[in-house]
Amino acid sequence: MGEQKKKAKHELVQANNILYHEKVLFEAFGHISVRNPENSNEFLLSRSLAPMCVSYEDIFTYDLEGNCLTETDKQSYAERVIHSEIYKRNPNVHSICHNHAQALMPFTVLDIPYKPLSHYGAIFYAGVPVYDNYDVSDGMLIRNKDEGERVARCLGDKKGMFLRGHGVIVTGESLRRCVMNSIFMVIDAENQYNALQLGTPKYLSYEEGRTCDEKTWGMALSQERAWNFWCSKLERNGKV
Amino acid sequence: MGEQKKKAKHELVQANNILYHEKVLFEAFGHISVRNPENSNEFLLSRSLAPMCVSYEDIFTYDLEGNCLTETDKQSYAERVIHSEIYKRNPNVHSICHNHAQALMPFTVLDIPYKPLSHYGAIFYAGVPVYDNYDVSDGMLIRNKDEGERVARCLGDKKGMFLRGHGVIVTGESLRRCVMNSIFMVIDAENQYNALQLGTPKYLSYEEGRTCDEKTWGMALSQERAWNFWCSKLERNGKV
Amino acid sequence: MGEQKKKAKHELVQANNILYHEKVLFEAFGHISVRNPENSNEFLLSRSLAPMCVSYEDIFTYDLEGNCLTETDKQSYAERVIHSEIYKRNPNVHSICHNHAQALMPFTVLDIPYKPLSHYGAIFYAGVPVYDNYDVSDGMLIRNKDEGERVARCLGDKKGMFLRGHGVIVTGESLRRCVMNSIFMVIDAENQYNALQLGTPKYLSYEEGRTCDEKTWGMALSQERAWNFWCSKLERNGKV
Amino acid sequence: MGEQKKKAKHELVQANNILYHEKVLFEAFGHISVRNPENSNEFLLSRSLAPMCVSYEDIFTYDLEGNCLTETDKQSYAERVIHSEIYKRNPNVHSICHNHAQALMPFTVLDIPYKPLSHYGAIFYAGVPVYDNYDVSDGMLIRNKDEGERVARCLGDKKGMFLRGHGVIVTGESLRRCVMNSIFMVIDAENQYNALQLGTPKYLSYEEGRTCDEKTWGMALSQERAWNFWCSKLERNGKV
Repeated sequence: MGEQKKKAKHELVQANNILYHEKVLFEAFGHISVRNPENSNEFLLSRSLAPMCVSYEDIFTYDLEGNCLTETDKQSYAERVIHSEIYKRNPNVHSICHNHAQALMPFTVLDIPYKPLSHYGAIFYAGVPVYDNYDVSDGMLIRNKDEGERVARCLGDKKGMFLRGHGVIVTGESLRRCVMNSIFMVIDAENQYNALQLGTPKYLSYEEGRTCDEKTWGMALSQERAWNFWCSKLERNGKV
Repeated sequence: MGEQKKKAKHELVQANNILYHEKVLFEAFGHISVRNPENSNEFLLSRSLAPMCVSYEDIFTYDLEGNCLTETDKQSYAERVIHSEIYKRNPNVHSICHNHAQALMPFTVLDIPYKPLSHYGAIFYAGVPVYDNYDVSDGMLIRNKDEGERVARCLGDKKGMFLRGHGVIVTGESLRRCVMNSIFMVIDAENQYNALQLGTPKYLSYEEGRTCDEKTWGMALSQERAWNFWCSKLERNGKV
Repeated sequence: MGEQKKKAKHELVQANNILYHEKVLFEAFGHISVRNPENSNEFLLSRSLAPMCVSYEDIFTYDLEGNCLTETDKQSYAERVIHSEIYKRNPNVHSICHNHAQALMPFTVLDIPYKPLSHYGAIFYAGVPVYDNYDVSDGMLIRNKDEGERVARCLGDKKGMFLRGHGVIVTGESLRRCVMNSIFMVIDAENQYNALQLGTPKYLSYEEGRTCDEKTWGMALSQERAWNFWCSKLERNGKV
Repeated sequence: MGEQKKKAKHELVQANNILYHEKVLFEAFGHISVRNPENSNEFLLSRSLAPMCVSYEDIFTYDLEGNCLTETDKQSYAERVIHSEIYKRNPNVHSICHNHAQALMPFTVLDIPYKPLSHYGAIFYAGVPVYDNYDVSDGMLIRNKDEGERVARCLGDKKGMFLRGHGVIVTGESLRRCVMNSIFMVIDAENQYNALQLGTPKYLSYEEGRTCDEKTWGMALSQERAWNFWCSKLERNGKV
């Protein structure tokens, strides 16, 4: 294992902790993965474990069929096909988070599309599709390859998608972008939800969303400021 | 007292702490019990005490008439008849939680039935009846046997029931399942409440609920992951 | 100063801390007082200070005209006339809390009366009047005797009253009851607010409220359980 | 550098911490500045950094064209033109906070004006304009002088203004007033938002707002009580 992969595993532990504390991976369920920087046909993901509890030794390596390449007697997440099927189809995706943040749930079960309302949501200016094509025999979870494939196709080249009555999938061109995208989607969904309760809000225009995504969240300066902030919070709370 | 009962008492203390920190037993009131694993005609329950404050020595043993079998000068919960009457009628129930979580209150006082909206609520796919047959002279609490019996009949073989303007009763086939069921009902009720404010959501179908309950929450892997997570949170916060 | 007064001052410090942590006296403003147990023509109240910061030496003694009897160069709360005018008229009131809890605000500015929805609110079964007869020149605060008198008359023998666009006054037959009444009003107002957003809820009947107030909150056992819980929370958080 | 400027820098670090903990500068973004007490043609502002992370050495000095006068290789906030353009036009403004508090967002994207509902909001009795004249090519942020100037003109002599889909700008005649104004706007906006969900509330009249602003928040006693409270909270949490 090279230095890059080791670094990616350490960063993935941080990402699990950050997303737990930011109430994205708020319970015992949901997960975040990163493509192996040393082999793009593999990805790194914790074993079946609550995100808050993930440590370096819990990170296993998987191939793009979802097979665990790490020798272990520990269980894997049943829903790892979400990750493998998306990495297989989307070469630009380098990190994936699947979570059940409560702020997003209304947009998965109502005929009200989530749309960027504030600059935080500009990342999703191209839209967020909703998946509702469940294999009922598998109990609302995405655990077989066929369903994983359907989910990956529904996502297409978008940065996020909802699973009706279940949760959300967010991608990123890097692990840090995936963390940022996941957190900002929650903040912006809260903003949209709050505004919708009082009336019909003015959303970001497509062009406002696109330029904000590019000129604000796409800048290294913004990304560093945000990542360092989340890491500082963990340190202050004695969690790293 | 055998090892099994000792272990059950320790776990009941943990359960009290977990449910306090997860904002289910969020105040000085409400309680959780477990059937005595060494004698199914008895159950274990704290003396009259706020759940947050419960320690091993506060756990008393009761028979199915609600009589305290522990020699003590301490007071018992007035509402212990809820537990005794349900254990008497439902041999498969091994744990009962009575709480006043605020997320559930709207569904006890409105003509809007709580129904599973997200996978967290699948546990309650068979429905949650509402009790509204109070003995007014007893001030909204369930403290006499007649009323305890009426409550137990209203529950039937369901996993949860609401008490109008008061709270909820949740059961489980084990203590850990009762803890999980109680926490997940709150999460799912929040999801339903939030969605209902913006429109009419698409709920889980009966079959989706049933398979999700069986294939997801019914699996030992899910239950362990959740229980270990809640215990880890207590440890991190120095509460166990 | 006798032992009873000393004890009352210590308990008043605890009450300030409890109400801060329970988000009733959540900001730098609002206050709670207790009648002097050794002289019913006097009451004890902190000097002008955020409730969170109140210590034993900050508690001053006032007469029923609002004059400070403690020799000091420190400032008094401008709104102490609320306390003096109510103690003067209501011999059964032994403690008064004035707070701005946000859960109550909607009921002070809308034509929707707050009414007990859950057992927590039964205390207020007799109704909660709304004061809206401000002396505009005094900027929304109750700081002159005339206005204090109008407020006391509006309260009458009720246990709570709202001040439009400002806050609430809650009384108690003892300090501990005043703390309980203040906290439970917030919980029940949250319950009513939440239910009202989805429809027209079924409230407690007058008789349900009256018996619940008498048989549940009126019992020493309930009061002790609640008070000990709030004190335990402070201790756990290292605040006493 | 004289003593006054040093003191102002220390207070600005406190202000950043307070506003982070009070959930005004709740994320990695947003900022607060103060006019240099030793040279009114300069202002003090942190380098590009999350407010929670700001320390004494991060505070740089800027002129009224937004040029950084501190020798450094660190980056400045892109949106510092908000501060420079307002200080240039408003000699009575001595402190400016730009934040994205979520409670305010609905009032920036709906045709519902924010108006003082409770005494906390009286500060803004003269109204809060909404800016919606973005330079789309700059991605929702205010980072060029032209747009900074348009924003400053929209603000005029008001104490606060909203930026559609982005956030808010709050000013103060001193740093401490700006902190108070920023926190109280959030509390009052929450109050208004909550009330609007149930009906049409009775707002403060213009005269009520004006006298409350003058006689309550304008008093040194109120300002000291609030500032000392926020500093005490930081100390208790070990953050200063």
